[in-house]
Amino acid sequence: MQKSLSVYDSDGSTFAPLVVIELVSETKEEAIAWLLNRVRDKQQDGGAELLVEQLTPGAQGTEKDNPNVYVVGASWQRLLYGAEDVGLFKEFKDGSMRGFTYANKHNFKEFQGDGDGFLSMAECQYIIKHGLDNLRAKDEAHVPGYPKMKLYPGKSVIRRMQSKGILVQVFPLHEKEELKRLSFSWFKKIKLSFQPLDDIRHYFGEGMALYFGFLEYFTLALIPMALIGIPYYLFDWEDYDKFTVFAGFNLVWCTVILELWKRLSASLAYGWGTLSRKKAFEEPRPGFHGVLGVNPVTGRAEPLYSNAKRQLRIYLLSVPFVLLCLYLSLYVMMIYFDMEGWALMIHDEEPTFWTGLLLFIPSIIYAVVIEIMNLIYRYAAEFLTGWENHRLESTFQNHLVLKVLVFNFFNCFASLFYIAFVMQDMVLLRQSLATLLITSQILNQIMEAFLPYWLQRRRNKKAHKRMIKTMEDKELPLSEQVKLEADMSTYLGTFDDYLELFLLFGYVSLFSCVYPLAAVLVVLNNVTEVYSDAFKMCKVFKRPFSEPAANIGVWQLAFEAMSVIAVVTNCALIGMSPQVKSYFPESETQLILWVVGFEHFLLASKFILTFVIPDVPKHIQIKLSRLEFESLEALKKRHQKEPVYKRLTYRV
Amino acid sequence: MQKSLSVYDSDGSTFAPLVVIELVSETKEEAIAWLLNRVRDKQQDGGAELLVEQLTPGAQGTEKDNPNVYVVGASWQRLLYGAEDVGLFKEFKDGSMRGFTYANKHNFKEFQGDGDGFLSMAECQYIIKHGLDNLRAKDEAHVPGYPKMKLYPGKSVIRRMQSKGILVQVFPLHEKEELKRLSFSWFKKIKLSFQPLDDIRHYFGEGMALYFGFLEYFTLALIPMALIGIPYYLFDWEDYDKFTVFAGFNLVWCTVILELWKRLSASLAYGWGTLSRKKAFEEPRPGFHGVLGVNPVTGRAEPLYSNAKRQLRIYLLSVPFVLLCLYLSLYVMMIYFDMEGWALMIHDEEPTFWTGLLLFIPSIIYAVVIEIMNLIYRYAAEFLTGWENHRLESTFQNHLVLKVLVFNFFNCFASLFYIAFVMQDMVLLRQSLATLLITSQILNQIMEAFLPYWLQRRRNKKAHKRMIKTMEDKELPLSEQVKLEADMSTYLGTFDDYLELFLLFGYVSLFSCVYPLAAVLVVLNNVTEVYSDAFKMCKVFKRPFSEPAANIGVWQLAFEAMSVIAVVTNCALIGMSPQVKSYFPESETQLILWVVGFEHFLLASKFILTFVIPDVPKHIQIKLSRLEFESLEALKKRHQKEPVYKRLTYRV
Repeated sequence: MQKSLSVYDSDGSTFAPLVVIELVSETKEEAIAWLLNRVRDKQQDGGAELLVEQLTPGAQGTEKDNPNVYVVGASWQRLLYGAEDVGLFKEFKDGSMRGFTYANKHNFKEFQGDGDGFLSMAECQYIIKHGLDNLRAKDEAHVPGYPKMKLYPGKSVIRRMQSKGILVQVFPLHEKEELKRLSFSWFKKIKLSFQPLDDIRHYFGEGMALYFGFLEYFTLALIPMALIGIPYYLFDWEDYDKFTVFAGFNLVWCTVILELWKRLSASLAYGWGTLSRKKAFEEPRPGFHGVLGVNPVTGRAEPLYSNAKRQLRIYLLSVPFVLLCLYLSLYVMMIYFDMEGWALMIHDEEPTFWTGLLLFIPSIIYAVVIEIMNLIYRYAAEFLTGWENHRLESTFQNHLVLKVLVFNFFNCFASLFYIAFVMQDMVLLRQSLATLLITSQILNQIMEAFLPYWLQRRRNKKAHKRMIKTMEDKELPLSEQVKLEADMSTYLGTFDDYLELFLLFGYVSLFSCVYPLAAVLVVLNNVTEVYSDAFKMCKVFKRPFSEPAANIGVWQLAFEAMSVIAVVTNCALIGMSPQVKSYFPESETQLILWVVGFEHFLLASKFILTFVIPDVPKHIQIKLSRLEFESLEALKKRHQKEPVYKRLTYRV
Repeated sequence: MQKSLSVYDSDGSTFAPLVVIELVSETKEEAIAWLLNRVRDKQQDGGAELLVEQLTPGAQGTEKDNPNVYVVGASWQRLLYGAEDVGLFKEFKDGSMRGFTYANKHNFKEFQGDGDGFLSMAECQYIIKHGLDNLRAKDEAHVPGYPKMKLYPGKSVIRRMQSKGILVQVFPLHEKEELKRLSFSWFKKIKLSFQPLDDIRHYFGEGMALYFGFLEYFTLALIPMALIGIPYYLFDWEDYDKFTVFAGFNLVWCTVILELWKRLSASLAYGWGTLSRKKAFEEPRPGFHGVLGVNPVTGRAEPLYSNAKRQLRIYLLSVPFVLLCLYLSLYVMMIYFDMEGWALMIHDEEPTFWTGLLLFIPSIIYAVVIEIMNLIYRYAAEFLTGWENHRLESTFQNHLVLKVLVFNFFNCFASLFYIAFVMQDMVLLRQSLATLLITSQILNQIMEAFLPYWLQRRRNKKAHKRMIKTMEDKELPLSEQVKLEADMSTYLGTFDDYLELFLLFGYVSLFSCVYPLAAVLVVLNNVTEVYSDAFKMCKVFKRPFSEPAANIGVWQLAFEAMSVIAVVTNCALIGMSPQVKSYFPESETQLILWVVGFEHFLLASKFILTFVIPDVPKHIQIKLSRLEFESLEALKKRHQKEPVYKRLTYRV
């Protein structure tokens, strides 16, 4: 870690500021004093044992600036102990990844001297966040000065202050030098090379690095498909309805790449030390509320919320709401078909160039409406899932993902399924798919990267100029840097990025056999996506806290579900192709039975393959087993220290 | 444990004999002396630290008796330390199940005094077996007296002597008092009550208890189906082809019972302390051979066998062999159909009572042939899987189960599938199913319980009389008991028992809608099966070593695969029923599409259900999480013993 910046702590010694805490400007003095004391208190007294100082406004500071901004750091020893507490895995001298322990620190590969530079800044920030989150109320009944801000023993102080709104934000600081280097190797030079995943992980953490790794992998996996797709498109092969080959290729492709990704992601996660890392005990999420009771697992005081009530909320409100939205989406689809018919009618009456263009208008409007509906639904789903009051962040995320996926899938693909299997109009399917894909890609790029950038630019036009100037300027005062970063937008996690990939994966795997150029478009989109995502992470958003992750989690499941649907869809498309139909001239029943049999065979093979291919590559499996074996042996040896012959002297 | 028997060890003190080791009678003195020394040696010297004595022949001993029979026991302290080594879970004072540790022994619920009676005899025998199996060669190059019996450091001595044939057998002793009590509550009184699963587990271990638990559960689960089946059969409902209702019921039933079993088995395994028990590191199985190398996981010398060679053997020999057997089975099936046609022809020419009976003859012959083919194939599969030279017993078992299941499934059900879906002859299907089911049940009961019993009876007719007499006689000398038990057959594990249940499950779930009495027959079979299995475990076989198990392992998967096939089959049968056909009078295509859609919907629901229903009941999940949380907290506290403020004094 670069100690490029430093502030003086109360003892007069300096520390590197890592995390910023911002309280509302009118926070009462006693609350601030109490919080700072608790943060500074020794761990055995229940404190976080961190270093924290108020930010002294810089020369350009105005009176408008919030004075209640604090920077938090920690001593190296505190960070190293913290690394042990959060269960960080680091590379051992023998090249394997092991859980870091303070006592054993000199046996880790990159540990030199007193350990300065052993932890990356992202790791330090994660440790500080963990320390802050685990700062718990002792016997305070409320936050001093705020009698309504109730506390009970064991309640996380930071989370309570956050949910009650006197804590505006906690965010980690960017590291300018590092960021500059990362930006340069990541997106500032146009080159044909892989992304610097290790550097991304080093700076943004494993969760983010896995997203970019997956994005890259998905793009590479699409290239063969794109290469087949181009001649198909150029030489009008699709006119001969030769898409059975393409559909068959699709089938195998979407199964294989997901299996291989699991292995690749295990390799990455092993190298980053998150594969065998134990999950920490999950605390209730900040928004969770309920009647104070005793958690049966921890025995701690904690709000409890009856599961029956939650189920009631889910089944009586969330499920009907989702169904209603699906119905609405169907309704909009029907309007789209009406518009389509109307455009076709006009074009048929007097076919000119302009009416020819008109044919594309309904699809474009529909694509825009779909995007808007997705966006609105997204907020509604988030509100609803919050209202369901899940105890854990992970359950919350799962329910949110499920809600959003079902709707987005339906909203984006219902019309295509309808055209393909009810109307059986392959020309309209091709046209509709192309318009949807292109429009949604353009909209997405605007929404995702350009819009936040532009908004931010408008918000602090003045500040922006200063930022541009000072980004080159190495010695920006800390107070300026903090102020600039505090005003940046907050990155809300990889959810929307994965969702976008999921829909693109759907377009490609479900229907690309009728429109082989889809893969090409998605590849192009993904390449720009890498740049725009990288740009927004480095320039537009506040630095996010790093999130340790061993895999892409629930998204793996979502992509696998999509690939199952793709098998069914592609089989049906194959069955509908004139080529295949010509093999069964007299009997449609025979044709369907064959296609169904083939599809069942494919599904069965798919499940067997998933089962047979090990999720973790052999060489990593061996390393993991070795660690496990060693810990078993160590346990045995501990027993044998007190030898049995001694024990036997107690024999009666 | 009852110390009903005891022998004097070399110090003159007594110990309870638990396990018997039998060497071939001509074993060289030096090998015996060496082995006994190694067994007696202290653990820190690499011994097993067990007590072992030669069995002194009793009064009735003849010269023919093998003198090289040894009984093994251990001190209570050794057993308690052993319980910690093998990772036994016992009930803690607070009612939760925790890993036993010697240091913490007084906090376990049933621990009293010096711990006598804390471990069941089956657990003690398991610990001794573990001790013997882990007795490893030090620097001996071969077994003394046998230069060809090569050893290398780390090789299990017992396994080498076993594979080279000088160790005849190692088996645990029965415990007469306990066995008597168990037999009485288990099968000696005819009663309507559950099996004493806890007692079975106490005597035979968790693996066996789970088998009997599953057998009982499966039988109970079949009762509703049997209850619906009886009126169907009695009132000739099947004449109206109302079997769609039954098929629908089948569909739901086979999904739900398997999901519930998982939860029930988790409850049982938690109570028995095997659910959260860590799997020990798996040693190579006794028959495994290869070139001596270094295991990459343990770093120990060990035979290595290249995976590529094994794959070659599997794909170039095993797979073609299985395919050939499947072809043979098809060939036999065709002969059966010829016979069937021939019988029908004769009956049609002059229909009398006798030719009516003749109609059943082909099915009966076919059923007998199927059983014989299964039996022969079983041996071939075992040989072939052994030849594939798998390193671990678990991989060996998986490959064996896969081979045997595929063939047995095909052999038993191919004819039924052919009749149902190719010939579409429901009357023949019903008749064939009934004959197959009844014949195979009768054959199985004979093969499984009666035959071994009769063989053993014939083998030692004299000894048998003595046994019957002495079974009532409490004070049978140890040497007599050992001699009697050494001559009993060896129980080869639950494989065949599960296989039988699997096939019965197949008959019921696949086709019981056309022959509703199938469930009734299977219930009857299972009830007698409980008694005959219990009888054979207690009276016919040597006591097996207890096998810790947390679930029914690969069989759960096998049953689930069968239930997926059942969904497909039942949907197809529903689609073929005249009732359903009458809904689609004009279009067969429509009918098929609807059935296929319905089937896909069911399969999807099935997978979602499997995913949504938690495998472990909530209250047990809470207990498991609590343990995990406590160990995390304990770890944290250990760190905080050395407080940070002290560490900080080192600050630079």
